[in-house]
Amino acid sequence: MTAVTPTVTEGPLPASAKIYKAGERYPDIRVPMREIQVHPTAGEPPVVVYDSSGPYTDPAVETDIARGLPRIREGWIANRTDTESYEGRRIKPEDNGFVEGERLTPEFPDIAAPLRAKDGTAVTQLAYARAGIVTPEMEFIAIRENLGREQMKEAMERDGESFGANIPDFITPEFVRDEVAAGRAVIPANINHPESEPMIIGRNFLVKINANMGTSAVTSSMEEEVDKMVWSIRWGADTVMDLSTGRNIHNTREWIIRNSPVPIGTVPIYQALEKVNGVAEDLTWDVFRDTLIEQAEQGVDYFTIHAGVRLHHVPLTVNRVTGIVSRGGSIMAKWCLHHHKESFLYEHFEEICDIARAYDVSFSLGDGLRPGSVADANDAAQFAELETLGELTKIAWARDCQVMIEGPGHVPMHKIKANMDKQLATCGEAPFYTLGPLTTDIAPGYDHITSGIGAAMIGWYGTAMLCYVTPKEHLGLPDRDDVKVGVITYKIAAHAADLAKGHPAARIRDDAVSRARFEFRWEDQFNLSLDPDTARKFHDQTLPKQAHKVAHFCSMCGPKFCSMRISHDIRAEAQKEGMDQMAKKYRQGGDLYMPTEAAE
Amino acid sequence: MTAVTPTVTEGPLPASAKIYKAGERYPDIRVPMREIQVHPTAGEPPVVVYDSSGPYTDPAVETDIARGLPRIREGWIANRTDTESYEGRRIKPEDNGFVEGERLTPEFPDIAAPLRAKDGTAVTQLAYARAGIVTPEMEFIAIRENLGREQMKEAMERDGESFGANIPDFITPEFVRDEVAAGRAVIPANINHPESEPMIIGRNFLVKINANMGTSAVTSSMEEEVDKMVWSIRWGADTVMDLSTGRNIHNTREWIIRNSPVPIGTVPIYQALEKVNGVAEDLTWDVFRDTLIEQAEQGVDYFTIHAGVRLHHVPLTVNRVTGIVSRGGSIMAKWCLHHHKESFLYEHFEEICDIARAYDVSFSLGDGLRPGSVADANDAAQFAELETLGELTKIAWARDCQVMIEGPGHVPMHKIKANMDKQLATCGEAPFYTLGPLTTDIAPGYDHITSGIGAAMIGWYGTAMLCYVTPKEHLGLPDRDDVKVGVITYKIAAHAADLAKGHPAARIRDDAVSRARFEFRWEDQFNLSLDPDTARKFHDQTLPKQAHKVAHFCSMCGPKFCSMRISHDIRAEAQKEGMDQMAKKYRQGGDLYMPTEAAE
Repeated sequence: MTAVTPTVTEGPLPASAKIYKAGERYPDIRVPMREIQVHPTAGEPPVVVYDSSGPYTDPAVETDIARGLPRIREGWIANRTDTESYEGRRIKPEDNGFVEGERLTPEFPDIAAPLRAKDGTAVTQLAYARAGIVTPEMEFIAIRENLGREQMKEAMERDGESFGANIPDFITPEFVRDEVAAGRAVIPANINHPESEPMIIGRNFLVKINANMGTSAVTSSMEEEVDKMVWSIRWGADTVMDLSTGRNIHNTREWIIRNSPVPIGTVPIYQALEKVNGVAEDLTWDVFRDTLIEQAEQGVDYFTIHAGVRLHHVPLTVNRVTGIVSRGGSIMAKWCLHHHKESFLYEHFEEICDIARAYDVSFSLGDGLRPGSVADANDAAQFAELETLGELTKIAWARDCQVMIEGPGHVPMHKIKANMDKQLATCGEAPFYTLGPLTTDIAPGYDHITSGIGAAMIGWYGTAMLCYVTPKEHLGLPDRDDVKVGVITYKIAAHAADLAKGHPAARIRDDAVSRARFEFRWEDQFNLSLDPDTARKFHDQTLPKQAHKVAHFCSMCGPKFCSMRISHDIRAEAQKEGMDQMAKKYRQGGDLYMPTEAAE
Repeated sequence: MTAVTPTVTEGPLPASAKIYKAGERYPDIRVPMREIQVHPTAGEPPVVVYDSSGPYTDPAVETDIARGLPRIREGWIANRTDTESYEGRRIKPEDNGFVEGERLTPEFPDIAAPLRAKDGTAVTQLAYARAGIVTPEMEFIAIRENLGREQMKEAMERDGESFGANIPDFITPEFVRDEVAAGRAVIPANINHPESEPMIIGRNFLVKINANMGTSAVTSSMEEEVDKMVWSIRWGADTVMDLSTGRNIHNTREWIIRNSPVPIGTVPIYQALEKVNGVAEDLTWDVFRDTLIEQAEQGVDYFTIHAGVRLHHVPLTVNRVTGIVSRGGSIMAKWCLHHHKESFLYEHFEEICDIARAYDVSFSLGDGLRPGSVADANDAAQFAELETLGELTKIAWARDCQVMIEGPGHVPMHKIKANMDKQLATCGEAPFYTLGPLTTDIAPGYDHITSGIGAAMIGWYGTAMLCYVTPKEHLGLPDRDDVKVGVITYKIAAHAADLAKGHPAARIRDDAVSRARFEFRWEDQFNLSLDPDTARKFHDQTLPKQAHKVAHFCSMCGPKFCSMRISHDIRAEAQKEGMDQMAKKYRQGGDLYMPTEAAE
């Protein structure tokens, strides 16, 4: 493998400018947002939207993949004076699957010495929150989540069903701290990932989405995965999980983390399994522990730990239609069964917590027994594991570790809400992080859609982060196009959930798109949408001429049938008379024209 | 325009055979179904699925677009001896937009004389149902809806939340009659469309989907639209609406109806408007009435009639973000406003009923004031119109006319259920037929997904038919690929709804796919899916070799990480010991391994 530096997609989205807001408490923090300009005829301010894309969309910043992103949190972390730099673990041959020479993914050029907590201190955002400290990360998040809430008056019109979520009109830094302290939200922010722009996952904040990627034994390379990471955040991924398997896992991850402005999650058991040549029963606590430290030192922000798969749960899966479909879950089940011993993840969970608290790695407690088919949804195995995850949550919290809980999977619509309700009750309101769920099994090739339906619903019910599913689910590895479709589908699900929960700022963008649509501002409609490129391309396929972008009709109906054009005529006609007067007249008039046989 | 006969996609789907089931009451009826073969190693019978694709997928039938489909209902209609053949209305130049010569779409070669009811009789399925008559159409539907319900025992396991729907374990012809008689279901079956294979729309049956198509003033031709119609039913469209505008409407429709095995719906006001050169205020009852007869004679199965848009409703729309977005609704609103008169559709609704009952054209009462943005959802205009639709339903029922009610549109998730509840209450449980609804406005280019979410939910709540939305919604006219994506997305939504309602046969196909997935029967997984071609193509993109179709792993995880493979190992290991014994042992064992600090 030659030392090729990955190329990534850069530059702003159409009609968009990157803006930064400063903090009050911490004036040096610069919170990125995207401002979308609208046509002057609109007489409207630009629309400000949440921006997860990092410096790549800021033309003022020159990014260099071989050097990594600016380390914006470095000073904040140093100022807390609770960490120390140390030499760190040496890279071992097994970290990259014993690969050498040409086939070895090159090391990232410039690797800093890792930090860790001094003397067993907890350096987690949860520990700070509990101590009453508002960190720069918390103020950053408060500003970020408030996006546009000040700018438009309709923002304050609350309308929704939140199922017990409690989203305030404005997010203050103190509110962020309170939610983290209560365990209702997590801020995945490893002290060794200072390049990350702080973000929060909790049901009283905007619903977030995660995009999975990673190399595999079968196909793909580091370069492709770095490109996919940058590509996924361009379209709105809030976190990225690097699920690499096969060789070169260590070096690939380093390139990804150093260039990622969003938190990176992993499933450490995958790498641990590679280190024992893929033989699940050869896994040991020592190999796993060493892998956790390796990844924590690199800056992984959250670990999926399948510590809820216990020996006595395994038999509960035997009569399932699809057995165990979580990779981590099946590995641990096999280990337990082979040794007829309790899971070493479960037995060593406190030691795992001690590692996590020294670097502020958040937990994503894995649902190793999630259902892989609608037939297996909400079964005994799934809910038995959830009970264990509730136990583990308390253990982690007792050690100041941040926790979220992973959820299913495949669940028909009528069984979705029970998942959310049970998770909230069992896990003390720790944030829920679900994969879909897929609402039917019959549409491989379209599982972004089967799962987007379930994701929107469970997001509405209270799930804090939705793990995307791409069209390739069950069939193959997602390419760049699949990643984009997965991200956009999940942005739709998350936003539909925000709207339904009654998030005070959610409707600003919908209304801006709708006004643009009604006023035939075609360019604005494209630019304000989740995917301006596709919207424009589709319009051009039917009406390619530039003149049609200012046309007061669209191809669907043509000029004579355009309801919006006619609607404008109606409004214009109505306005001639004065609207209120007319309304009164028509309401009276209604009776005159009502035929007697149809009268109520 | 040269007289080109459209070419359409024919031939069976992969691993599929067309089968026909005969009636008991009417032994000559042949109800088509699709049988999907699975690999012999499965040891399972073929999976039987609902088949809307018509003779095009039966290799034993030679179809000829220039001759039209076999007239399977001709004898059934004749046997009722309540209709008469007559000369029918002559084609007028305005029927095809005054177009001549080369630009005129050729007439369909062989046009039969139309039928109509004798002497004011009602020849509607509703009239027969009320008279206690089980028609061949009803028995056909009972057999069709029972699909596979006899074949598998899990079919009888009822599990779902039906919100008051009442789907029996088995559908009998009498149940079909009862539901039609109660107005809870409609059978769109114009006596002049004898080519149609009977189907039913009602919330106690499988959820159906409609695909829209049609020529436009801006683009497209008859050939393309006939091809799209056949293409859409291949993928599962249950009805097709021909929404042609521009010229050649009459001749295009004739080609479509003569070749359609599914009911065809139209919005007659579109053609009427063309006849008055697109000037809404020039519309008259006479032009509209003449258009209804023209279309009824051709065999249109259901008419969208926007008779609920009344003069006094118009002012309610003036402060909306997106005004009136229904084409028919805006045309009628403009007419009302211009003349300051009550809608002629409303005033002449009883005469419209008299036409409908003479041909058995079902009504789809149009929601001309549906919201076009989430901001306008569930507003006064929308619900005022719904009240009027409730009135009109009673008028239609009093004249033995079949009725369904159209619904929105753009509705955020938390406001969807209110639509369904209000429709059921206001319209006496007449079937609801909704367009989506779209759950957010911010994703043009992906509105099949924004709306697929809403469609699945409202289908679950009780909507009987879901009108598809394609990726081109708001942007352009759908091409063949868009039609397919729209249909598959809506098949997903409808099926997810059937599952959630607890339809007794719905899970058969999910479980078959899931078993195939778990057993690495890749070909079966493709063939059993809604879109085998795409599933296979996606799999081949990562693992193109034939050997990988029998591989016991997939590209997503590779051999070492395949949870399903490991799950098989677990099952095999467990079976060595005898499952029950092992389960007991492990449950006991669980305590032994539980560390004391985590004990509950």
